Amino acid sequence: MNIIYTLDIAGTFAFALSGALVAKKENFDAFGVIIIAFVTAVGGGMLRDVLINAHPINWIADLNYIWTILAAVFVMFFFKSKVAPLSKTMFLFDTIGISVFTLLGLQKGLNFNLHPFVALIMGMVSAVFGGVLRDVLTREVPLIFKKEIYASACLAGGVVYLLLGYLGLQENLQFIVSATVIFLIRFISVKYHFELPKIKNDIFGK
Amino acid sequence: MNIIYTLDIAGTFAFALSGALVAKKENFDAFGVIIIAFVTAVGGGMLRDVLINAHPINWIADLNYIWTILAAVFVMFFFKSKVAPLSKTMFLFDTIGISVFTLLGLQKGLNFNLHPFVALIMGMVSAVFGGVLRDVLTREVPLIFKKEIYASACLAGGVVYLLLGYLGLQENLQFIVSATVIFLIRFISVKYHFELPKIKNDIFGK
Amino acid sequence: MNIIYTLDIAGTFAFALSGALVAKKENFDAFGVIIIAFVTAVGGGMLRDVLINAHPINWIADLNYIWTILAAVFVMFFFKSKVAPLSKTMFLFDTIGISVFTLLGLQKGLNFNLHPFVALIMGMVSAVFGGVLRDVLTREVPLIFKKEIYASACLAGGVVYLLLGYLGLQENLQFIVSATVIFLIRFISVKYHFELPKIKNDIFGK
Repeated sequence: MNIIYTLDIAGTFAFALSGALVAKKENFDAFGVIIIAFVTAVGGGMLRDVLINAHPINWIADLNYIWTILAAVFVMFFFKSKVAPLSKTMFLFDTIGISVFTLLGLQKGLNFNLHPFVALIMGMVSAVFGGVLRDVLTREVPLIFKKEIYASACLAGGVVYLLLGYLGLQENLQFIVSATVIFLIRFISVKYHFELPKIKNDIFGK
Repeated sequence: MNIIYTLDIAGTFAFALSGALVAKKENFDAFGVIIIAFVTAVGGGMLRDVLINAHPINWIADLNYIWTILAAVFVMFFFKSKVAPLSKTMFLFDTIGISVFTLLGLQKGLNFNLHPFVALIMGMVSAVFGGVLRDVLTREVPLIFKKEIYASACLAGGVVYLLLGYLGLQENLQFIVSATVIFLIRFISVKYHFELPKIKNDIFGK
Repeated sequence: MNIIYTLDIAGTFAFALSGALVAKKENFDAFGVIIIAFVTAVGGGMLRDVLINAHPINWIADLNYIWTILAAVFVMFFFKSKVAPLSKTMFLFDTIGISVFTLLGLQKGLNFNLHPFVALIMGMVSAVFGGVLRDVLTREVPLIFKKEIYASACLAGGVVYLLLGYLGLQENLQFIVSATVIFLIRFISVKYHFELPKIKNDIFGK
């Protein structure tokens, strides 16, 4: 589907831009910025493809990912002051990105005949691990482990996708509804600062 | 062998629990705790399988690993105060875990027709790299690089396993003896605080 | 070609020695030193082979890499005081190493029928990611992201290699000229402290 591919590329652009922003704050040189943008944008899908033995892996199979990432780094280098005020637009793209990444990863897992639960994990890996790798390379504790309903949004949308599939919904509709679920959970949770529970006391109150 | 599979699962449970404990100390949210438990428990075997091209990789081929990890996280969330006093039991499970992980990894390497020395490395990778990945994700310097006779125990047991194989020992016996070697070295070294030598002075005393 | 293989091994030795030196400064034990030396020396090629599905991967296909690494660690343990004054020799070996690693990685990519641009990336991954993995495991911000014209030298040499290939130059000559390009850029940039530009102001001066 052409619309989904467009959204995939838009999400890649947004992820690359966010990676480049982090690298810039760390005072990385041009090469370092490209690497971090690259890892953030395609790292999740790359890990997924290595784990499920899907060769050629994502960015080797389709060079458009690389061109998109280089374009994002170019924009960051030369139009930084124009991008900064667009943080809301970027957040929108980013949220579209995780929605599409999750469902495309999940679909790929199902196409590889994985157990639906494993395919669900692969969807989350696709959406989440680019950011984890970025944080590891910039020596941050991965953000998603601490503060945000991010992976949970992907999980919820993935479950909805599987359920709608069992119910026999038409495939395009199935994709759109599940993507909307991820988008809305993520969007609302950021707006209202929801967080997942942490282990503090157990059921014995200790 | 059914006993070995049971010990494998018990070790997975212990590794997952130890990962969840670390994640809890880092104040991770529920999702972060699951990821760290997961990586600690199956990360070593996952890396091994990717390196030797053994697809489907460990936790994709057998979903029981995932259920075991989720059970460990569940226990950590709801029965934390009951688990903490059991640290000796957990250390026992953990030590059983590295013994079984090492030998199963080594066997898998041999089954894939790797050079015995490479198979030996794969055994150590299986037992040790879950902890390394956990430490990388939680921004610790990997513990095993600094303080404990851990990998060395795996190495020694692996060598014993290979030697007994050349001597033609019956396979079950070969497994039990080598596992015991790993278990005892690890157990005794923790009890008496043995450490590996570090590079301080060379043979010229400088 | 036998000379290239010899240079490959010399580079591996230099990379392993530099990894062992870093691990020593971090006060790692013997096992930790071996792991860091190993990752530094063959980590880049290992990552490349996993990404392009080239099994068996580098150090599994040829055990000489492992023996070379163990020899380097042995030297570091017992002849440290003799090695330290040789830092210029080691820098020479290291620079030879990145030249050879880049071109061998690039050639391997081309042999696997990758797009030349992807093969170029694989050459850089081969030369650079051993150091990145070393830095991640020792909790440093990867050096190459910040300070040195390192990856850029690999990139330039790789581009020259591809161009000379299109021009139909004889293969040995093609290798020697491109390796010299990498060597010289790296050598001169270290001597005169060149650095890549960082993102400070964009074209609007902001």
